[in-house]
Amino acid sequence: MTVTDERTIEPPYKWVGTRPVRHDGLEKVTGRAKFSADLLLPGMLHGFILRSPHAHANISSIDTTAAAQMEGVRAIVTAEDFPDLTEPDALGKTNADLIFQSQKIMARGKVLFRGHALAAVAATSKELAKAAAEAIEVTYEVLPHVLDLESAMADEAPILHEGLVTAGAEEPSGPTNIAKRQVFERGDLDKGFADADIVVERTFTTKPVHQGYIEPHAVVADTNQDGNSSVWCSSQGHFAIRSLTAQLLRWDPSRLKVTPAEIGGGFGGKTTVYLEPVAVRLSQKSGRPVKMVMSRADVFRATGPTSGSTITVKIGATNDGKFTAAQANLAYEAGAFPGSSVGAGCMTVLASYDLENFHIEGLDVVLNKPKTAAYRAPGAPMASFAAESIVDEIAAALDIDPIAIREINAVEEGVQATYGPKYPRVGMRETLEAIKDHPHYLTELGPNQGRGIACGYWFNAGGNSTATVNLIDDGRAAVVTGSPDIGGSRASMALMAAEELGIDVADVRPSVADTETIGYADVTGGSRVTFATGLAVIEACRDLVSQMRGRAAKMWSCDLEEVEWVDGRAQHVDGKEPPLPLSEITRKMLHTGGPLSSTVSLNAQGAGPAFSTHLCDVEVDPETGHVTVLRYTTAQDAGRAIHPSYVEGQMQGGVVQGIGWALNEEYIHDDSGEMENPSFLDYRMPVASDLPMIDTVIVEVPNPSHPYGVRGVGEVGIVPPLAAVANAVSQATGHRFTDLPISPVSILAATAGD
Amino acid sequence: MTVTDERTIEPPYKWVGTRPVRHDGLEKVTGRAKFSADLLLPGMLHGFILRSPHAHANISSIDTTAAAQMEGVRAIVTAEDFPDLTEPDALGKTNADLIFQSQKIMARGKVLFRGHALAAVAATSKELAKAAAEAIEVTYEVLPHVLDLESAMADEAPILHEGLVTAGAEEPSGPTNIAKRQVFERGDLDKGFADADIVVERTFTTKPVHQGYIEPHAVVADTNQDGNSSVWCSSQGHFAIRSLTAQLLRWDPSRLKVTPAEIGGGFGGKTTVYLEPVAVRLSQKSGRPVKMVMSRADVFRATGPTSGSTITVKIGATNDGKFTAAQANLAYEAGAFPGSSVGAGCMTVLASYDLENFHIEGLDVVLNKPKTAAYRAPGAPMASFAAESIVDEIAAALDIDPIAIREINAVEEGVQATYGPKYPRVGMRETLEAIKDHPHYLTELGPNQGRGIACGYWFNAGGNSTATVNLIDDGRAAVVTGSPDIGGSRASMALMAAEELGIDVADVRPSVADTETIGYADVTGGSRVTFATGLAVIEACRDLVSQMRGRAAKMWSCDLEEVEWVDGRAQHVDGKEPPLPLSEITRKMLHTGGPLSSTVSLNAQGAGPAFSTHLCDVEVDPETGHVTVLRYTTAQDAGRAIHPSYVEGQMQGGVVQGIGWALNEEYIHDDSGEMENPSFLDYRMPVASDLPMIDTVIVEVPNPSHPYGVRGVGEVGIVPPLAAVANAVSQATGHRFTDLPISPVSILAATAGD
Repeated sequence: MTVTDERTIEPPYKWVGTRPVRHDGLEKVTGRAKFSADLLLPGMLHGFILRSPHAHANISSIDTTAAAQMEGVRAIVTAEDFPDLTEPDALGKTNADLIFQSQKIMARGKVLFRGHALAAVAATSKELAKAAAEAIEVTYEVLPHVLDLESAMADEAPILHEGLVTAGAEEPSGPTNIAKRQVFERGDLDKGFADADIVVERTFTTKPVHQGYIEPHAVVADTNQDGNSSVWCSSQGHFAIRSLTAQLLRWDPSRLKVTPAEIGGGFGGKTTVYLEPVAVRLSQKSGRPVKMVMSRADVFRATGPTSGSTITVKIGATNDGKFTAAQANLAYEAGAFPGSSVGAGCMTVLASYDLENFHIEGLDVVLNKPKTAAYRAPGAPMASFAAESIVDEIAAALDIDPIAIREINAVEEGVQATYGPKYPRVGMRETLEAIKDHPHYLTELGPNQGRGIACGYWFNAGGNSTATVNLIDDGRAAVVTGSPDIGGSRASMALMAAEELGIDVADVRPSVADTETIGYADVTGGSRVTFATGLAVIEACRDLVSQMRGRAAKMWSCDLEEVEWVDGRAQHVDGKEPPLPLSEITRKMLHTGGPLSSTVSLNAQGAGPAFSTHLCDVEVDPETGHVTVLRYTTAQDAGRAIHPSYVEGQMQGGVVQGIGWALNEEYIHDDSGEMENPSFLDYRMPVASDLPMIDTVIVEVPNPSHPYGVRGVGEVGIVPPLAAVANAVSQATGHRFTDLPISPVSILAATAGD
Repeated sequence: MTVTDERTIEPPYKWVGTRPVRHDGLEKVTGRAKFSADLLLPGMLHGFILRSPHAHANISSIDTTAAAQMEGVRAIVTAEDFPDLTEPDALGKTNADLIFQSQKIMARGKVLFRGHALAAVAATSKELAKAAAEAIEVTYEVLPHVLDLESAMADEAPILHEGLVTAGAEEPSGPTNIAKRQVFERGDLDKGFADADIVVERTFTTKPVHQGYIEPHAVVADTNQDGNSSVWCSSQGHFAIRSLTAQLLRWDPSRLKVTPAEIGGGFGGKTTVYLEPVAVRLSQKSGRPVKMVMSRADVFRATGPTSGSTITVKIGATNDGKFTAAQANLAYEAGAFPGSSVGAGCMTVLASYDLENFHIEGLDVVLNKPKTAAYRAPGAPMASFAAESIVDEIAAALDIDPIAIREINAVEEGVQATYGPKYPRVGMRETLEAIKDHPHYLTELGPNQGRGIACGYWFNAGGNSTATVNLIDDGRAAVVTGSPDIGGSRASMALMAAEELGIDVADVRPSVADTETIGYADVTGGSRVTFATGLAVIEACRDLVSQMRGRAAKMWSCDLEEVEWVDGRAQHVDGKEPPLPLSEITRKMLHTGGPLSSTVSLNAQGAGPAFSTHLCDVEVDPETGHVTVLRYTTAQDAGRAIHPSYVEGQMQGGVVQGIGWALNEEYIHDDSGEMENPSFLDYRMPVASDLPMIDTVIVEVPNPSHPYGVRGVGEVGIVPPLAAVANAVSQATGHRFTDLPISPVSILAATAGD
């Protein structure tokens, strides 16, 4: 279902808004799409990483002598083979983030989590590499470790990083695991709470959860004797891989050519590097290409999940439901190195509401677990879980409809966001209306059933993108970008190109090129690609239309101004020439001036923020505590759905991941810091049989900064489900659940006395 | 040695004219450059072609039943698996050239030469594919065949193609093997010869010779179930491979994506297809990627050498050496299908001379040998051999210095060429002067030694090219084109980009992209790339300079007009800002407007024609007939040598191939049409120990149609050596040699009575 905002009248589109089969679909369903692990090079070696068996330990010594003598071994690297980034670079500078990144990819001096890489071997087979890695002799001085936020922030906590100070702290601290404190505040908090008729405050906790991409990290690197390296890998941004790898090796980025392999899911988790610098160095040392592929257990143990969190939210409201003040305190696990998503948690936690008085504080906390990474709307879902649970509780207490209380407080155009800027035209109210009007909202619930409502916000990003469009003589168009396709962007690029050029979308061939062949693009993340890379595609197509009008003018011996472009054809304004379809112009292009190509690079501004409202019905089995999600409806402002099926897919995917986070998923560590469930059998993500069909309502409130009104759609969909599910379970059970996952055990514990 | 024309004053260049190490050099010398045969894909099959054992036969039947059942066999194709191009296409059209191309890649109904492909097998190994191919049962009705021009043109000759008529014939003929007749004429031939004091006429013959590229043809094709195919192959033009393969399959070209592998030599022979359509179809039928690699014998037996020829030239001159009339009759072997290089032979045979009265006739003749293909200045060397031998004989007869007689008759700017157009500024006289002034020309000869002079002409081409230049944040530039690098064009593109951008040539990363990622380019042939693709690179760099001036203006908050670009840096005209080097602008580009990229496509006009004069000393052993090339000097007008080492390499390479053609190389067929010397042991190309150092004089008469004055340099160097060597042998022996190769046997035969 698509609801288009009536206030905006748009021209009818021929291709935008249609649902063609994705261009890369057949290759994927037939298994012919080429992922990094499929790549074979002559003479290729296989790499294996030795990982720490301790959660926290000083490395006393690493002896690779015996391993280096073993059969098939061609190279071994440890931290000694990488530049020590604590030493100043050629410009006399150091960068704290890069120092931590460097220690993340290869432990230097100490290991900080179980699974931390400390050496890597390249050998003629993976088995030989593994055997040699296991023969590396490492001696450790084991240190006390810390696995939870409370312990990590305690006064006597084991300190992960000597000399770490709390950035943004009000006063200098002693040794600490709190890497950063940040605050957003406005108005008079005390007065706001004093004006309230009701104040609700609770503390919520969430566990680290993984993005759960199907494809493990994989890379092939081929480093030449001149010190240049070709890298093939799956990522959300091969330019970012180039940049990070270069920085960690202290190479100029142009020494690396990174070619994007097909990507089997990322969800934020493939915006950073783990294997790439290691493979590049192993290849350099061995003089051979090196392939490295993580096992699923490696992915769980050594790549970044999202943060576990402890969040306290306090909101005051008048009896008629108007919020008078709000306070939020967020502590997020960063993992072993600073840099959780708490910043975005702070930005989004109360961003749906028009608040005069608020105080938001976030803490970034290191502990002995893998460094966290981005995960779809990083930091927002757990923040929203806390805030939307409190909103739900206030509505219930005041006996106000949960949609109505959100309508009373919803932000709209011109309102200043809690994190600073004023909102442009946004669609929060429209998503609330869409849910209110939906048949689902009118259905009755049965016994042991509950209904939850929650809203979510995500800013969305613009940024740097490049597109090249090459017309082919048969009238088709090759659309080339530097944006890896993780969610159907080939299809959306093709649809916009088809619309602009006036050709069939099947006649557009979208592709993603390497870091040398196409101009720079930021990562595929921040829900930016359809917006920003799409803008580059549109502009390149418009330039080609202008060039084609010129060719037609040449063929007709008339002025450019006499040629219009209408529906894929050059038309003479006076109608005195038969129209020239694009394919006629391309067929003759080599004789009217040469090939037709255009490249546009830009830094796109004006990404439209996204809002989403979710509606969830559950039934809780009082015997077992099992939660069945009965029905789920999501309404999301897409601005303009270029390919509605993929917008719906993004909406549904976000919901599914959010349901998993709410009910099932969690990292389970034993006391030693070992993850006990590093497989998809034990780390329980929802599968199709766990879920109802997710109903979607695409709300279209066009973004005024995009020719078609596009907003990013990839992330906001995961923001509301945690609260929507929790609110539904609370209604079904009569108990408020503040700790995720809401497992059968926790439900039975809460309802034991009922 | 470089001689720059004094009449043209050029600015000093920083990079153009320097000799950096080629960017792809290290990869090549270390064996890491990736050729087609290096490519491995998961599940890849191997193809093998069954070839005709007869020079001419009707195919009665092909039974693949048994072969299809054999171990590992996944697909078999015959002509039945390709469209019959004699039937009209969707537009109701047929194309005679394509019909022949189609029959060339897979025999339909009859085989026309020994080695003609008639079936292909894809199996899990090459050995299994070969075994299955040999198990295909074929029955033939053997026909009489014809292997030489005279027999092929005889009245009662066996006819290769029923219904073939002589295009351009003065009157309709009966069944014929003469596919085409073409004529250039001007003036009054009879009057011209009547005005002559001396008339010399001789008939010359040359044999088919092969380009001798080191890398055999190889391809990998991966055809998807949607009917699109990815093709990796070595070629001189992957856009041409796309186009030809598509036409032979009757596919739209956009269904094919052709990625250029590294190329191990082409010299014209890799501008057409043999394996590509076959591999695409085998992959389509098997549903698997298919690799096909020719053996050396396949290359000799089944790919195109250049034409054997019979050429009669008659020139009349006055006693003071002025040519009064000239006549040339050229018959060229086309091989089994029409389309020799006789057209270019006719255009070039007398193109060095200013003639008022001439008649040139060319015949294109089919016979039962492999279809000929382009070979470096196609058609010109044998034509020049004939004409320059006659010029030499006239000079000797009139006792005029062989350089002087050429100076008397040389073409220059404004003269109308024999084939029509008026010459722009050309350097024929300058190359003659360069040789006359060279120390080599002043040396004395000893007994049994001779000296030969010959000139050569090649038009050179412009045409369609695309270049994309992407700036990298560290201040380097990726230069991407669609022109495969067969002779150092990566280096020349990089030099021009470095000159324009003002950065170090080592900071340019040149590459060649696939048919989707970069805009169209014509083949790397016609000596066009440095000129035409170079123009696109220069224009893209100039656009980037303009963009960078804009960024500087933004950073300085001034007008664009206040910013100049000088030596790689933005400078404020008033000097009131410190200059911004390119790397400073690129480092900040994402914050000043986005990535910096530019694409330029063009159809380059104004390729400058090339002339070359060669000087060759030989010694003939009267006992054995062995010819030793003692010294060889070539002077060639390069317009402007972008990378002098590669210009010299092209000049030397042309000479070496020409010497081989003159003295050693030839296809030897037995009476059945079987090639008896299909290996580099028996097909004798000159090796280093056969040759002296080839002295080079780069003459620079800048081409006014190129910013740096570039002319093509790749082809003209092979035009004069046949005559230069023959003229030298004639002087050494006192006998005129008219048949190539001038083997020891032929020398002993000629000198037997001396």
